Amino acid sequence: MEKFEVNILGCGSALPTTRHLPTSQVVNVRDKLFMIDCGEGTQLQIRKSKLRFSRLNHIFISHLHGDHCFGLMGLISSLGLLGRTAKLHIYSPLGLEALLKPQLKFFCNKLPYDVVFHSFNTIQPEVIYEDRSLTVTTIPLEHRMPSCGFLFAEKQRPNHLIKDMIDFYKIPIAQLHSIKLGADFLTGDGQVIPNNRLTLPAIPARKYAYCSDTIYKEGIVDQIRGVDLLFHEATFLESEKARAKETFHTTAMEAAIIARDAEVKKLIIGHFSARYESDELFLTEAKTIFPNTMLAHEGLCVTIE
Amino acid sequence: MEKFEVNILGCGSALPTTRHLPTSQVVNVRDKLFMIDCGEGTQLQIRKSKLRFSRLNHIFISHLHGDHCFGLMGLISSLGLLGRTAKLHIYSPLGLEALLKPQLKFFCNKLPYDVVFHSFNTIQPEVIYEDRSLTVTTIPLEHRMPSCGFLFAEKQRPNHLIKDMIDFYKIPIAQLHSIKLGADFLTGDGQVIPNNRLTLPAIPARKYAYCSDTIYKEGIVDQIRGVDLLFHEATFLESEKARAKETFHTTAMEAAIIARDAEVKKLIIGHFSARYESDELFLTEAKTIFPNTMLAHEGLCVTIE
Repeated sequence: MEKFEVNILGCGSALPTTRHLPTSQVVNVRDKLFMIDCGEGTQLQIRKSKLRFSRLNHIFISHLHGDHCFGLMGLISSLGLLGRTAKLHIYSPLGLEALLKPQLKFFCNKLPYDVVFHSFNTIQPEVIYEDRSLTVTTIPLEHRMPSCGFLFAEKQRPNHLIKDMIDFYKIPIAQLHSIKLGADFLTGDGQVIPNNRLTLPAIPARKYAYCSDTIYKEGIVDQIRGVDLLFHEATFLESEKARAKETFHTTAMEAAIIARDAEVKKLIIGHFSARYESDELFLTEAKTIFPNTMLAHEGLCVTIE
Repeated sequence: MEKFEVNILGCGSALPTTRHLPTSQVVNVRDKLFMIDCGEGTQLQIRKSKLRFSRLNHIFISHLHGDHCFGLMGLISSLGLLGRTAKLHIYSPLGLEALLKPQLKFFCNKLPYDVVFHSFNTIQPEVIYEDRSLTVTTIPLEHRMPSCGFLFAEKQRPNHLIKDMIDFYKIPIAQLHSIKLGADFLTGDGQVIPNNRLTLPAIPARKYAYCSDTIYKEGIVDQIRGVDLLFHEATFLESEKARAKETFHTTAMEAAIIARDAEVKKLIIGHFSARYESDELFLTEAKTIFPNTMLAHEGLCVTIE
């Protein structure tokens, strides 16, 4: 099966600790790398991984808090030193370009490639990236500032033709494309051959949803329903629910409720507050609601089957 | 003896590797922490060390290349989250304040403490910091942009009084201060007691010189003569001397020549280019000229005795 992996480079919250770095992930779809958020130290984490800088062309920034974007300048600068010539696309809520442009001009005035900024609205879901096999759609969240998650969705591939049946009915080549897409076949003598006798269904398209930073927001459940993998922030434990609400973050239990209600296949939680000594309590709490939960950690690579 | 230590947080050059982070050091003088340069990941390195954020009040930036200052925003931001209220002083060549102010305004708009920027000239040595026991003086270097090293010099302490002699000559308390500073004593009957019979010399004041980034510059030798410890950049090996010159950097051999000519007690080299697979060649090369050389590495703490 073609590659669809999520690599966790950092899963701490604003204050880095010896256990966790600020947020960054790399989604690897068929060896195209898509970065989500870029906290300080992200380029160092890529160095430690087997991910290749040259495969990275698109960076998605969820919101403009420092722990989600302070690694951008170092990364952009290093890509230049590595001789990059391909454009680098950065997608974010409005404002990032104005903040980075003066720095780029000063620190990277001889950059051998272009950085292209794209801003997205944070109110309505919007397809912000599309290629032959993938779309990336924003998931509007609710935080102390405009913030969006991202839904990575493979495009559904056409059905597989059953060669023996195609031969048996002598189906003309010109009709094969529509049959792959689900059409029935009408024989010369008017008989209708239903599509499910001619094709085998393709592997279902896979989906990954990333949701951070946000207060508990039921409204996202419909958009992320049934995804294979959900990353949801869990900055606090239920015991700090008041603090979570006040700072527009989510508790581990609330993240699990979102996962359960959206009937996702698997949940990863992260963005852990530095106040907790261990992450295990997050897991225990989330599993009471949604058993198929795992903890994010730096270096984790989750394959979506 | 009172503490005077140099902690290496990062000693790579522009492109970080799995072995080396961008430049940063912390000089610990009697538990006051002074940071030199602040590359990406510096705050993470402090977390890993036993250094305490609360002891840090002064940051010295040698020059405005990203690998020497991209860690500032993350550090400033985290100090705020840690509840800092004391002013943080940042010393650099002109330009840093204009670059950071818009970011501070956007990312750290509720910072509970003040960041105070000080710019220094990069042409003439200048005392940029002074307290009861220490001065920090710039060491003008020569790089692709204005750049200075820093000379950390303890102030010479007064001599120690020899109590038995003070009692023997019944020296009045009012005269003790001048005797500590080197005065002789005149007895009632006109006899001169030389100072060296009344005092023991204090431990000689210690000095640390940091020189990075720079092309080989003989002109610094007089200013750093006899220092206890010299950190000098050694970005390249002698085999890449042309490249060193072109990029305004120093080779390991050149760093050793500076150390030898300045008669320093010990040399640490760092700022190694990412092109080399191992650091050992730097050491071998430097030691041919200056045997008391050591390699910098992340986590190294050198005590100045």
